[in-house]
Amino acid sequence: MSPRHIHIQDVAPRDGLQIEPRPIATREKIELINALSRAGLAKIETTSFVSPRAVPSMADAEAVLTGIDRVPGVEYAALVPNSRGAERALACDLDELNLVMSASRTHSQANLRMTPEDSLSEFAKIAALVRDQVPLNVSISTAFGCPFEGRIAAADVFSLLDRIAALGMERVTLCDTTGVANPAQVLSMSQSVRQQWPSLRLTLHFHDTRGMGLANVLAGIAAGVDRFDTSLAGLGGCPFAPGASGNVCTEDVVHMVHAMGFTTGIDLAALLQRAQAMPALVGHDVAGQVAKAGPADRRYPWPATERSSTSCKPA
Amino acid sequence: MSPRHIHIQDVAPRDGLQIEPRPIATREKIELINALSRAGLAKIETTSFVSPRAVPSMADAEAVLTGIDRVPGVEYAALVPNSRGAERALACDLDELNLVMSASRTHSQANLRMTPEDSLSEFAKIAALVRDQVPLNVSISTAFGCPFEGRIAAADVFSLLDRIAALGMERVTLCDTTGVANPAQVLSMSQSVRQQWPSLRLTLHFHDTRGMGLANVLAGIAAGVDRFDTSLAGLGGCPFAPGASGNVCTEDVVHMVHAMGFTTGIDLAALLQRAQAMPALVGHDVAGQVAKAGPADRRYPWPATERSSTSCKPA
Repeated sequence: MSPRHIHIQDVAPRDGLQIEPRPIATREKIELINALSRAGLAKIETTSFVSPRAVPSMADAEAVLTGIDRVPGVEYAALVPNSRGAERALACDLDELNLVMSASRTHSQANLRMTPEDSLSEFAKIAALVRDQVPLNVSISTAFGCPFEGRIAAADVFSLLDRIAALGMERVTLCDTTGVANPAQVLSMSQSVRQQWPSLRLTLHFHDTRGMGLANVLAGIAAGVDRFDTSLAGLGGCPFAPGASGNVCTEDVVHMVHAMGFTTGIDLAALLQRAQAMPALVGHDVAGQVAKAGPADRRYPWPATERSSTSCKPA
Repeated sequence: MSPRHIHIQDVAPRDGLQIEPRPIATREKIELINALSRAGLAKIETTSFVSPRAVPSMADAEAVLTGIDRVPGVEYAALVPNSRGAERALACDLDELNLVMSASRTHSQANLRMTPEDSLSEFAKIAALVRDQVPLNVSISTAFGCPFEGRIAAADVFSLLDRIAALGMERVTLCDTTGVANPAQVLSMSQSVRQQWPSLRLTLHFHDTRGMGLANVLAGIAAGVDRFDTSLAGLGGCPFAPGASGNVCTEDVVHMVHAMGFTTGIDLAALLQRAQAMPALVGHDVAGQVAKAGPADRRYPWPATERSSTSCKPA
């Protein structure tokens, strides 16, 4: 049932950098995306075609996509909030457009100023515009719970999946936007989705807000899911939980699944090197553990002297 | 196969505080243990009967155990490194003595200045001294890997379990001392141990050094293990990985297993309140996520104004 190869999809250039207070230069974004490409990520969410007035930090979307080196085998995706964004994105040689909606009416209204039905109508317009030029993925925010409404009924998410499928879209990401999902819920939800929509290209998108991120990835894998959104150095997050962790950390997820015997096609050493440069880019400490501690197979020299300073006293 | 009730055993007063640079007063230790007792922990590792010269911070072992309030149903344990420690511990009304050894010869030499065979001989002396007055638990350090030797063969750990069983000891803790275990290894190792030693009272002890702590707890539960060592606010750690996380965090583990439907008998709200006081006690920031973000069922008011400052932009 478990897959052997896991597709790791980095969202740091969009979901991560978007929330950073320090302005990130276009050339820094290009350098980050190129490093992720060289490290072998399966997909990279490069930018967002939102209104430059609403999100000034993403105003350079076209410049980023013109500037990066495309590595064969890596998919380059961008977030597209509406038809206008889709028109801009179509001119940029992308491998996927990522549309967003929210499973929670309250979150949808607060975050997108639309109802879920408005979102689905907009998706129909985008689909008509894009036709078969680029695959469309739909990311469903708050699919595991909402900071306003609490638990979202799985049946409501499944109903959205039916309506998305009816639009001819075959790729969906279930997003745990505020880090409330638990592994039992992830296992059960993922199993149901894979049973009911077997041909869907399903991605899980977790935040580590409450420390359950990697446990949720594990639960997803146990249900047979083989695609996960992650963010280099755990960048990203949510203003609802200041000080808490953001998206699950790419290098920590890759380190764990490699240790478990899965393949990802990713060069972990290159990823760790790039992750270690992230605090300098964003100007603050970041969440990843493996970049600090080194991988599990790291060896230490025998502590010939100074026993007390090098030993992990019992136990 | 999965258990319904999980025994959460807090090691912060011993494994956590032992590594703290700031001296912790006896009355502060007593207050911490009393708070953990009231919150409903299954077991608390209260202190260590090591030589006061070797570990000055644990010199008040007797005073701590005299000062605490014993709550019925909570087990009070202490670490005992040798026969001399066992003699002191026997006078202190404990529910368990925790003996330590290391599965790795190199780590054993570096950390305990003994071979694993020396440790087993010492355990035999302790068993003869203690007889049936108090149950003995053996904690096996580096059971999942060693910072000097790398991977430890499961067969070597199983051989130790045979020799521990031959000494009449029925409680064992497998310790991932430097946070190198991965969930596949934990699942496989735990399944083997539970099959081969079905009556053993098995505990798993994880560190979150590489972010895999809660995923490893999940793997342990999947193998039917129902006892885990955890540390309030994730205190503890290892000098091999400065800046990295320490023991798995009690409140984050309790939060996860409760969300999954398991019982622990623990009052999570009380635990979170006490965890939030830990930075003031130890004088630095701590690792737990739930104490910062609040539990997953936390609700937020509708963001009537200032959309950009309260929304988690897509997705």
